[in-house]
Amino acid sequence: MTTFIPAIALHGGAGTILPSKITPEKEAALHAALRSCLEAGLVLLRDGASALDAVTASVMALEDDSLFNAGRGAVFTSDGTHEMDAAVMNGTTRACGAVAGICGPRHPILAARAVMEQSEHVLLTGEGAAKFCASAGLEMMTPEWFGTDARREALEAELERRRLNLPDDGDPARKHGTVGAVACDMRGHLAAATSTGGMTAKLPGRVGDSPVIGAGTWADDETLAMSATGHGEFFIRWAVGHEIDARMRWAGQDLTRAAGDVVAELGARGGSGGLVAVDRTGTVTLPFNSPGMYRAWCDKSGEIRTAIFSD
Amino acid sequence: MTTFIPAIALHGGAGTILPSKITPEKEAALHAALRSCLEAGLVLLRDGASALDAVTASVMALEDDSLFNAGRGAVFTSDGTHEMDAAVMNGTTRACGAVAGICGPRHPILAARAVMEQSEHVLLTGEGAAKFCASAGLEMMTPEWFGTDARREALEAELERRRLNLPDDGDPARKHGTVGAVACDMRGHLAAATSTGGMTAKLPGRVGDSPVIGAGTWADDETLAMSATGHGEFFIRWAVGHEIDARMRWAGQDLTRAAGDVVAELGARGGSGGLVAVDRTGTVTLPFNSPGMYRAWCDKSGEIRTAIFSD
Repeated sequence: MTTFIPAIALHGGAGTILPSKITPEKEAALHAALRSCLEAGLVLLRDGASALDAVTASVMALEDDSLFNAGRGAVFTSDGTHEMDAAVMNGTTRACGAVAGICGPRHPILAARAVMEQSEHVLLTGEGAAKFCASAGLEMMTPEWFGTDARREALEAELERRRLNLPDDGDPARKHGTVGAVACDMRGHLAAATSTGGMTAKLPGRVGDSPVIGAGTWADDETLAMSATGHGEFFIRWAVGHEIDARMRWAGQDLTRAAGDVVAELGARGGSGGLVAVDRTGTVTLPFNSPGMYRAWCDKSGEIRTAIFSD
Repeated sequence: MTTFIPAIALHGGAGTILPSKITPEKEAALHAALRSCLEAGLVLLRDGASALDAVTASVMALEDDSLFNAGRGAVFTSDGTHEMDAAVMNGTTRACGAVAGICGPRHPILAARAVMEQSEHVLLTGEGAAKFCASAGLEMMTPEWFGTDARREALEAELERRRLNLPDDGDPARKHGTVGAVACDMRGHLAAATSTGGMTAKLPGRVGDSPVIGAGTWADDETLAMSATGHGEFFIRWAVGHEIDARMRWAGQDLTRAAGDVVAELGARGGSGGLVAVDRTGTVTLPFNSPGMYRAWCDKSGEIRTAIFSD
């Protein structure tokens, strides 16, 4: 059996605060958090675990860190509630699971994984998903557990902006925010996982690209595993995950070119955001067309790196 | 300006009753209904209307006909409720809109279209979608309006089967059922629309491929418009709509080959169902791997045809 070199990458959203607004202390905290969340998956991979378990572990760590818009620290809808979405996909079998519009499980990514492993369905939403999560034995939290003061202030600022009919200040941080991870394990299997609180002050019921298989989440061992973050409606309309797969499969492009071109074309159409992706050669690519994207990765070189803005 | 020959195709689901179970009277009624629903869109197309308006009109007609599992005549969930999904896509702009898990609008396809035209979102679900529909001024119906005796009997038979732990009798009619239409208008623009009540006795909250852009619904003027019906989870995992687009765009395949191959491959993997598709040359293709698929079409030849089983 060929042994593959494990590789893993994650993002904490493309809705990064602008360079002018970030303090050195905040920046250091973000780099440390990104590294820690990457290591949660990387140690498993190096120990021989599956890509699926590695991306699950990294996304669970991101969900627990209130710096990121997923799980604890999820943003508020315009009604002051939380509605979280998540998806996971196994590149070996194309098995996948997703949830949309849930508030309950501490780890929405485990809810997605339960849909994949314990149901015959791919996508469960709303109350039906909540009942399923409860019956699947997932750890549940009260709504108060997810909210943070910073997210509450962001909601109030956005609602005030709308009341006063002020122009959007262009800070994408309020609009975007998703976490995700992709990995290649020692057997050459790929997996992807994505989790999000959505957009601050979003219309209740709005679902973005994260739980849409082929848009914000995709994995196939023959091509790539990817997880996206950004303006979800654009990622759905351009089927971003599957479009990269298609260019690799049918046009013979390599991962870096296919992913880079798709993200650049999306930006030219007004769709801001980015993604992390890996293939079974251990190549990692992290293209984005926004001012920054919280990210961490360890490719076949074995070196761990973290970054926020463009190089 | 080049004038294109209008073409339109629709399906009323692949979960067709088996040839052995259909009476001549029922068969005649189905052919008449399929023809009538096709004509609802075709007359518009021939009058110069947009593909978008034509597919909307045909799907509205299918939704109003209780023979088909969408709108009036939608199947029941295991809780005895209705949860309808729908999507629409404009091939010229890739604008799209979708709803999932709604019960209220007489025409779920108009709810999807309102999401596309009156919101900045692509996918709205559940209660949030219901509120949006009400504010969009859509015609609303009580839950009782959607149910029919035949659907209620199907639910009771399926719940009884589960209680007695009897084997599935293999009749796909209870599991599948979706309606959809695709069209090419005189300006060479394509559009697709899909609407469904889902699966009889489905888990509440389950969402299939219909509202998943790139899976059960897809349109791009450069390639094809398509609407699928079948075992939705498979259509999502194989991103059926966008996979056909990719083979046409990146591998140079024509519509008939690309769509036929994808449906055949899906069948080989256990994913039963089919789809209708059209391109801007006025070619229509209607591949399926199930015993039958309710369908009607008018391609560039100008002749209206209807069919239920294989030729």
